[in-house]
Amino acid sequence: MASVVEEISANRHHGGFNRRYKHRSSVLGCDMTFTVYFPPAADSGKVPVLYYLSGLTCNDENFVQKSGAQRAAAARGVALVAPDTSPRGLGVEGEADSWDFGVGAGFYVNATQEKWRAWRMYDYVVEELPSLLRTAAPFAACLDADRASVFGHSMGGHGALVVGLRNPQAYHSISAFAPVCNPCNVPWGIKAFTGYLGEDREAWKQYDACELLRAFSGPVRPPILVDTGSADKFLEVQLQPGALEAAVKDSGYGPAKLRMQDGYDHSYFFISTFADEHVNFHADALLGPPGAGGGKQ
Amino acid sequence: MASVVEEISANRHHGGFNRRYKHRSSVLGCDMTFTVYFPPAADSGKVPVLYYLSGLTCNDENFVQKSGAQRAAAARGVALVAPDTSPRGLGVEGEADSWDFGVGAGFYVNATQEKWRAWRMYDYVVEELPSLLRTAAPFAACLDADRASVFGHSMGGHGALVVGLRNPQAYHSISAFAPVCNPCNVPWGIKAFTGYLGEDREAWKQYDACELLRAFSGPVRPPILVDTGSADKFLEVQLQPGALEAAVKDSGYGPAKLRMQDGYDHSYFFISTFADEHVNFHADALLGPPGAGGGKQ
Repeated sequence: MASVVEEISANRHHGGFNRRYKHRSSVLGCDMTFTVYFPPAADSGKVPVLYYLSGLTCNDENFVQKSGAQRAAAARGVALVAPDTSPRGLGVEGEADSWDFGVGAGFYVNATQEKWRAWRMYDYVVEELPSLLRTAAPFAACLDADRASVFGHSMGGHGALVVGLRNPQAYHSISAFAPVCNPCNVPWGIKAFTGYLGEDREAWKQYDACELLRAFSGPVRPPILVDTGSADKFLEVQLQPGALEAAVKDSGYGPAKLRMQDGYDHSYFFISTFADEHVNFHADALLGPPGAGGGKQ
Repeated sequence: MASVVEEISANRHHGGFNRRYKHRSSVLGCDMTFTVYFPPAADSGKVPVLYYLSGLTCNDENFVQKSGAQRAAAARGVALVAPDTSPRGLGVEGEADSWDFGVGAGFYVNATQEKWRAWRMYDYVVEELPSLLRTAAPFAACLDADRASVFGHSMGGHGALVVGLRNPQAYHSISAFAPVCNPCNVPWGIKAFTGYLGEDREAWKQYDACELLRAFSGPVRPPILVDTGSADKFLEVQLQPGALEAAVKDSGYGPAKLRMQDGYDHSYFFISTFADEHVNFHADALLGPPGAGGGKQ
């Protein structure tokens, strides 16, 4: 029986494998690629899943090639799942005119504006991809897709915070590198939300981590870890970690660890420096002392 | 006073910095780029230097972005120096026609054929770059360029073995990922050596690790570590690790550890898997127990 996914590359790495797949997304209406890192432990049992959501202009390859996160994932026995950042190849007029809107810039929302109706990356990440991992070969046999966490970078750090805070029962832990913390109030977010969601700013709030924190009702509270570099050129205008800090404080959300990392910028050098800590943070939540995450299974 | 190098980028990484430079190479007659990873220890004293020689089609960026070697280099206090793989921008007719000859494919030789006379990557790596690190700002103050080791990948693994075996007093240790072990007898090497060195095969032997091992007279013998992946698509035709094994055996050279790594291919996923071991191997030779490498300083 043919699988619904086609493996397009496989590279051994830290004792496991990076495997890249192509599949037809029914949510997005196009072919999509994603990469799964299978740690060695996936050879002998089901392992939990840690999603990584990438930033603007990226696809699944940047993280897979540059983060070095596979090392800790291998050591802890966690699979990494890296999706692409938008639909591709649909031929929507102007879809590739901007690096911060359209192709490579899905912002992890479900668009409501007719022209961009295919841009449903929220549903793709939260529904379609987990469902695929639960049911399709070769994933169903070796991944425990009901035991998941999420992290991401920049636009994808925003995505991780949003999908995690909106589905606290589905993600054991949430972390981000240099996330866009308050997209409703910064140029990248305003451009994306206006284009995908229209002018009604109330509709934007469901995709803003600061708004979600202030409205958060629990009771399950996945722990949050956020690192941002003090030398990040997008710090003040686009990222605004201070807005997230204020929202955490106002909402009383916890546990949440928000850190400023001295001298680091927006690049994958920053991500790879702290990748071990983030993977271990998630592995503790997913696999930690017996009972630690058991209630969420 | 202006430095002879221009810093073109700087990214904090694992507590240190990747710094990329441009300079005018007098040996090659063109501008060249290279990257130095300064570990945190370089802030407070001189650190030894580990050169990394890249493979075909690469420049200094592939290793810097994908290997993850900075992590162990930071932990051990070793600087990484990654040069480019050929002269660039000289406009020699046909220089970019092949991916395995000309631009990006210097093979770490000094060309003797008139057309390719600028291709003197051997002298660039062995003479000009170390001299620059010894004398120019900002290197002279924080690098101990007289305490060096060398490693590389594929064409650069060949390069590391050749520069190390020809200058055993200058390199404390030598390692390689998937090196071209016996270039005199494989298609990549025959094409490159014919083009750069002409038809006289005797002249090729000074750039062939197997030939150098068989002629090796010591007395200083830098330890050698070589890893090659069993799933490397270039294994049989281009790399020939068996030829190196035979040469080590015939020559009685040691210590030399030649390993086959099951299921690994030719990619940076292979390199990053074993980067820690290679950096630690060199750090042991450069910084290991007092007296271990002291005689070479």
